[in-house]
Amino acid sequence: MRRGGDMSGDGNRAYGHQTFSRSRSHFQDRVTADGRDGWPVEAGRYRLVISRACPWASRAVISRRLLGLEDALSMAIADPVQDDRSWRFTLDPDGRDPVLGIRFLSEAYDKRETGYPGGVSVPALVDVPSGRLVTNDYQRITLDLATEWTALHRAGAPDLYPAGRRDEIDEVMAEVYEDVNNGVYRAGFATHQKEYEEACTAVFRRLELLGERLSGQRYLVGDTLTEADIRLFTTLVRFDAVYHGHFKCNRWKLAEHPVLWAYARDLFQTPGFGDTVDFDHIKRHYYQVHTGINPTGIVPLGPDLGGWLSPHGRAELGGRPFGDGTAPGPVAPGERVAAQGRPA
Amino acid sequence: MRRGGDMSGDGNRAYGHQTFSRSRSHFQDRVTADGRDGWPVEAGRYRLVISRACPWASRAVISRRLLGLEDALSMAIADPVQDDRSWRFTLDPDGRDPVLGIRFLSEAYDKRETGYPGGVSVPALVDVPSGRLVTNDYQRITLDLATEWTALHRAGAPDLYPAGRRDEIDEVMAEVYEDVNNGVYRAGFATHQKEYEEACTAVFRRLELLGERLSGQRYLVGDTLTEADIRLFTTLVRFDAVYHGHFKCNRWKLAEHPVLWAYARDLFQTPGFGDTVDFDHIKRHYYQVHTGINPTGIVPLGPDLGGWLSPHGRAELGGRPFGDGTAPGPVAPGERVAAQGRPA
Repeated sequence: MRRGGDMSGDGNRAYGHQTFSRSRSHFQDRVTADGRDGWPVEAGRYRLVISRACPWASRAVISRRLLGLEDALSMAIADPVQDDRSWRFTLDPDGRDPVLGIRFLSEAYDKRETGYPGGVSVPALVDVPSGRLVTNDYQRITLDLATEWTALHRAGAPDLYPAGRRDEIDEVMAEVYEDVNNGVYRAGFATHQKEYEEACTAVFRRLELLGERLSGQRYLVGDTLTEADIRLFTTLVRFDAVYHGHFKCNRWKLAEHPVLWAYARDLFQTPGFGDTVDFDHIKRHYYQVHTGINPTGIVPLGPDLGGWLSPHGRAELGGRPFGDGTAPGPVAPGERVAAQGRPA
Repeated sequence: MRRGGDMSGDGNRAYGHQTFSRSRSHFQDRVTADGRDGWPVEAGRYRLVISRACPWASRAVISRRLLGLEDALSMAIADPVQDDRSWRFTLDPDGRDPVLGIRFLSEAYDKRETGYPGGVSVPALVDVPSGRLVTNDYQRITLDLATEWTALHRAGAPDLYPAGRRDEIDEVMAEVYEDVNNGVYRAGFATHQKEYEEACTAVFRRLELLGERLSGQRYLVGDTLTEADIRLFTTLVRFDAVYHGHFKCNRWKLAEHPVLWAYARDLFQTPGFGDTVDFDHIKRHYYQVHTGINPTGIVPLGPDLGGWLSPHGRAELGGRPFGDGTAPGPVAPGERVAAQGRPA
């Protein structure tokens, strides 16, 4: 999300005209196995800065867990509520990230480019030795974790972006991005009725199509978990908690759609997904930061969340969640999310 | 609701301190059989001014239908969206109520009391010959329709406030008023988190208790429809459409509570209830008027409303909806609500 606690939440926007518009990330260097951009994959060298509130950052949190990169790539968790200097490390002792030593993520941006006037967004990869931002490319970071960081993957890590399925994964992800991941933001930040209605209609049209696709198969592409599932999950898990009411995507709740609700619960109950989700961070971020659509900053008590752990019955559809691999182990003690939604 | 399209919607408030507070009505004259306040019951003499958006006014719309008072007591339907002069007759030709000849309900208030600085609210009973407001006492008007207007009731009109049950009806209505009818407003207009949480918690605590009560009996009191059902219905029918999202009463949707959802559908499908409901008026009023909590004025597309007509299975619980009476006949052609929610 941009520098300053503005309405855009976790993405960029252009407010000069009336349509919500998410910009491409400004910093697009890649961390690769061969280090061709100057940033070779290396254990302990980079720090992943995220917010558990942010769906774009949460992709990386899930990928890191599934791939077992916790020891190789440490993680900084920002306060879900930004101030006018954007994401900050107020959850840490003395309000400083203990590894980078900074109070605001913007400091890493400033070290990378003096006077950069753009947005400060998560996810961000920061080079620990220099303290410089490497990339905030939310569309690229997870694909590189899956394909460039393989030397550091845990034994049994799944292949989240299998070479033989990339065309199909890319196609699904493009539709999900346009209509769902970003569509809920276009609906929520619309300033005109027509703009809202077009976005909201597209959200539900796409969700209906995805529901049909998922009625007979356990995962979006092939018979294993892929990057496509991760990207759909991070929107679905926020749907009833924030997008339904706050963003007015309210034709139905996710909990009212049998197929998608079962699919989302299946993922939620899969190690690496639900154990990364902090509903408290999610709700406080959206409702307290977006004062343009929620001037009181009041955070709703609902919805009841107990249903996320109810049986989903999706195993009957077959599928091999981790393909030839295995499920990740337990969450590291320092990264556990409390049942009430607060980090332990 | 008050003069001016302020945040309070359809009731009064005191904003000097922080708690939403609904005032008693200022004008409490009663239209009675004996005319002791100077206003005797008389066919054709009074005009009931309502908005289909307003739950307090909708009580009177339902009572008038159930009791068959349409010919004796004509009805003016205000535009669901007020301007800074409050309720207006912009749905009528030339923007004037054809019977009272006024453009704004406030004109009837001004004829009653010069310089009255308070709120202009519906429901309002207006004396047609003088054009003066008689009463805007939303708590009293329907009780008087049930008990004072009996000489003008249709044949087969139900007894909505039976003498032998009034203590029980009053007790239920007091709890429903405090926690539900008015509770959703206290939640929605709260300006502090604690105030919101107390109101929202009370809403759902009371709804759970009402759900228990209604799990074994078809209606709230006795085995027939009473005023208590009317008052609960006017909040329930708005619940998923506006209170759930706009007022943040979102622990669950009504459609997720099997007992209350079936109870509400039973009433909705009973002549005199659902045929008075205009979801378009409801949604446009709440979302466009309350700019303090919805600055964009955007009206959500959801929720899907088709479920209101699905089978409810409540007849198995027994009960005699109209007691020794009968159901009302069809809605008069000029008062029909279109399927899409616009008056025909």
